[in-house]
Amino acid sequence: MTTQQVANRLVELCREGNYEQAHKELYHQDAFSIEPDFFPDNKVQGMNAIGKKGEEWANNLKEMHSLEVSDSVIAGNYFSCTMSFDATFKDRGRVKEEELAVYKVENGKITEERFFYSMG
Amino acid sequence: MTTQQVANRLVELCREGNYEQAHKELYHQDAFSIEPDFFPDNKVQGMNAIGKKGEEWANNLKEMHSLEVSDSVIAGNYFSCTMSFDATFKDRGRVKEEELAVYKVENGKITEERFFYSMG
Repeated sequence: MTTQQVANRLVELCREGNYEQAHKELYHQDAFSIEPDFFPDNKVQGMNAIGKKGEEWANNLKEMHSLEVSDSVIAGNYFSCTMSFDATFKDRGRVKEEELAVYKVENGKITEERFFYSMG
Repeated sequence: MTTQQVANRLVELCREGNYEQAHKELYHQDAFSIEPDFFPDNKVQGMNAIGKKGEEWANNLKEMHSLEVSDSVIAGNYFSCTMSFDATFKDRGRVKEEELAVYKVENGKITEERFFYSMG
């Protein structure tokens, strides 16, 4: 898959909120996931760790009120898109967040995801 | 200026290749500029250092054959766009490059630029 094809499929699956399928289908086994620097242990590696992050997020989610994922912009083996959501979490109530995500693609698989956002 | 306004103006100035004006008009004095990790000293701070990087790049440029800057995607106080160029440099001849750029905006000024690309 080209970077464009990976990007299109990721955007499609994220719009459905189907992160598990995205992980299974599009990610390399040893991919990195990087949150902003202000988080302790902001960088994890491997689909076990990434899957665990996703599971904790999903378990903490009470209701997703709205979710928007932009089309991607693509340069070589990187692409970027934005994700905005309005959601209620068990631990922190209702929040609106906007994130910018950057993905690195190597040999048709996502090998790095990196998120940019500020805490409100 | 909002993130959207800064993004629009930066894209406009980059399409003209007018990086000097972009630095003067849109950047915070203490902004960070971050190249990929595989470069030594990949992170510099301050408009003196960023200006010097730009000057070296411009002095090394022999001819710009084509330059394309995408529209931006925006999330909160971050935005991203891609830059593709076909250029001849004094030190390495003619190259085609595609870069993804991420910008952080605080109080109407760019406080961080970060570039993602692979060496061909």
